[in-house]
Amino acid sequence: MDTDRRTVLGAGAALAVAAATGARGAQPVARAAPRNYRRIATEEAWAIPEQREAIAAIARSTWNNLDVRNLRGGSSGAAGGPMGATLSALGRRMLDVDGERLELMDRDGVAMHLLSLTSPGVQLFAAATAVSMAKLANDRMAEVIARHPTRYGGLASFAPQDPAAAVKEMERAVRELKLNGFIVNSHTNNEYLDQEKYWPILEAAEALDSALYIHPRSPADTMAAPFSDYNMHAAIWGFQAETGTHAMRIILSGVLDRFPRLKIVLGHMGESIPYNLWRADHWYHYRRGIQQSSLQPSDVFKRNFLITTSGVEDTRVLDYCLKWLGPDRIMWAIDYPYEESAPATRFMNEAPIPDADKEKIFHLNAERLFRLPAA
Amino acid sequence: MDTDRRTVLGAGAALAVAAATGARGAQPVARAAPRNYRRIATEEAWAIPEQREAIAAIARSTWNNLDVRNLRGGSSGAAGGPMGATLSALGRRMLDVDGERLELMDRDGVAMHLLSLTSPGVQLFAAATAVSMAKLANDRMAEVIARHPTRYGGLASFAPQDPAAAVKEMERAVRELKLNGFIVNSHTNNEYLDQEKYWPILEAAEALDSALYIHPRSPADTMAAPFSDYNMHAAIWGFQAETGTHAMRIILSGVLDRFPRLKIVLGHMGESIPYNLWRADHWYHYRRGIQQSSLQPSDVFKRNFLITTSGVEDTRVLDYCLKWLGPDRIMWAIDYPYEESAPATRFMNEAPIPDADKEKIFHLNAERLFRLPAA
Repeated sequence: MDTDRRTVLGAGAALAVAAATGARGAQPVARAAPRNYRRIATEEAWAIPEQREAIAAIARSTWNNLDVRNLRGGSSGAAGGPMGATLSALGRRMLDVDGERLELMDRDGVAMHLLSLTSPGVQLFAAATAVSMAKLANDRMAEVIARHPTRYGGLASFAPQDPAAAVKEMERAVRELKLNGFIVNSHTNNEYLDQEKYWPILEAAEALDSALYIHPRSPADTMAAPFSDYNMHAAIWGFQAETGTHAMRIILSGVLDRFPRLKIVLGHMGESIPYNLWRADHWYHYRRGIQQSSLQPSDVFKRNFLITTSGVEDTRVLDYCLKWLGPDRIMWAIDYPYEESAPATRFMNEAPIPDADKEKIFHLNAERLFRLPAA
Repeated sequence: MDTDRRTVLGAGAALAVAAATGARGAQPVARAAPRNYRRIATEEAWAIPEQREAIAAIARSTWNNLDVRNLRGGSSGAAGGPMGATLSALGRRMLDVDGERLELMDRDGVAMHLLSLTSPGVQLFAAATAVSMAKLANDRMAEVIARHPTRYGGLASFAPQDPAAAVKEMERAVRELKLNGFIVNSHTNNEYLDQEKYWPILEAAEALDSALYIHPRSPADTMAAPFSDYNMHAAIWGFQAETGTHAMRIILSGVLDRFPRLKIVLGHMGESIPYNLWRADHWYHYRRGIQQSSLQPSDVFKRNFLITTSGVEDTRVLDYCLKWLGPDRIMWAIDYPYEESAPATRFMNEAPIPDADKEKIFHLNAERLFRLPAA
């Protein structure tokens, strides 16, 4: 049976079993059988063998920055990183788009994965390698989507190391390959997108009407030291510090007044930005001399940003974000294969919010933003 | 009329006027006249002339780290920093404990300020200077409290630069001066309290049954670069990144398993830690190899930490924190004179939470934790 045609109607039973195994955390969960929502997961990682091999070669070097440490897996004390010398279970899941991934999607009733090349994408490579790797990854992504047009969309990679080449590849990825948006993994060579040399990338994303997902990577070398112990450079703390700081730089720089229609997506419930919006607005007003934009930070955030639920299955956080952003700026994501499909799906199935909001978060916002096929 | 004996009963009228000028932000506010709560503000800055002069001398040097920049005021583009060469209005308010401060407290119905030496306290000074400045500041603080015993409590300073001297001063401050707890301004010489050399400080605070308030300062030199533009090193973003990272290091290091009764206080609604508790717990479980403690991060946080509302007048954040922490681990604070007394008071007067919770947050928790006089 073609995996593309598998029915998603069996998902309810599987989820009921998963729910019976007990939810993590203290939040109350409803126990009603899940509706058959259309579900589009928007931050789903994959890798191509060439990227994996290039990163594995780096992992065998003496370079020990926080990303390399994370990908290598060993020195962090954690079990095999996704790109270590030996192919881990996580690494295997990352490469797969035709087997287990589709089976899990079917089991959990997930209509589509919006794929993106796993972090840090091409951003560990020298410019020429990064440019060619981004092209190769985008070509492969287009092939995967052609093979499974109802199951996958994809965010195109580009090499910020060479902004002019990045813009060319962004144009090709949207116009020729028909990819659905862009991904960048926070800093590039310890620099951020608010710097003028990167403005052509922001300009191209806006002109192509294609959202830019700023995905985490570990803190830049220029802020690495305090994050270098206790494995705290990664998802447990460092990712939000790095990526939230990147986003706040973009907001406070005022650069988005040049690109008011650009859409930027942040995962992980907004990388701590939503929690700090009141205080950011307050100090923006308080110290008038520091204003780079006529808009306060929360207005820039609400004009230019959307967030996803990747990796945060906490109804308290969801409720908080809904109060600040409303249901039109939040999208569902699993963060597969770093996160498991079943609990991420159950979290949104059971979230105590109106069905109309759930439809927006599960698929309507993603369909609109990423030009994905509706059911 | 002795300011100590001024009635706080006139506060209602003043607050009604303040409320009529309009609340910032989008949160709904109740308009009922405020009850006459007992109000204890728990993160209230002051300075002594000797600290001010020593910092002003540093501000005239070529040292330009993020704290010095902030205190100097000039290079940040903001109007006069509190410790600049010229005494700003903010600096004047910082030095005052007998005049305008008491008048504002009376106007707004604030029974007590829990004073602390303004950030970064003694932590910019060489060890010997820091040790003597901490002693001097604590002596002065005890004098101020003796002069106004019903209006002020105080958090003692110490010099982490010399842990042995710090412990001696902590003991003197509690046993002889009867001060109410301790304050430290995040990192010291780019080092954090989870390092073993600082454990005697944590041990002393626990043994003296006195809470340790970890107040922000700007990001350490070791993470400064990404925070060095757009004035983002301070309250608008950098403070929570620095102080939250410090707290997360303490949590993830497992050191608090040695000091399970130590109470640590974080301002600004927890410096982004509460927002990230689900994800921190999740990854702590997920990667079993990285665990330093038998407790997950949120359990450590709920065992050892309390938060204050300083500088965040957002009912959405308060509601979120109540869901995670309940009303026994949250205390009210103004952050005077960096923040204005009236709106901070109005925020808690009008917060849509049960009166019993409001009594805890306004004063009961602070009275218990800091051994402050009840009404």
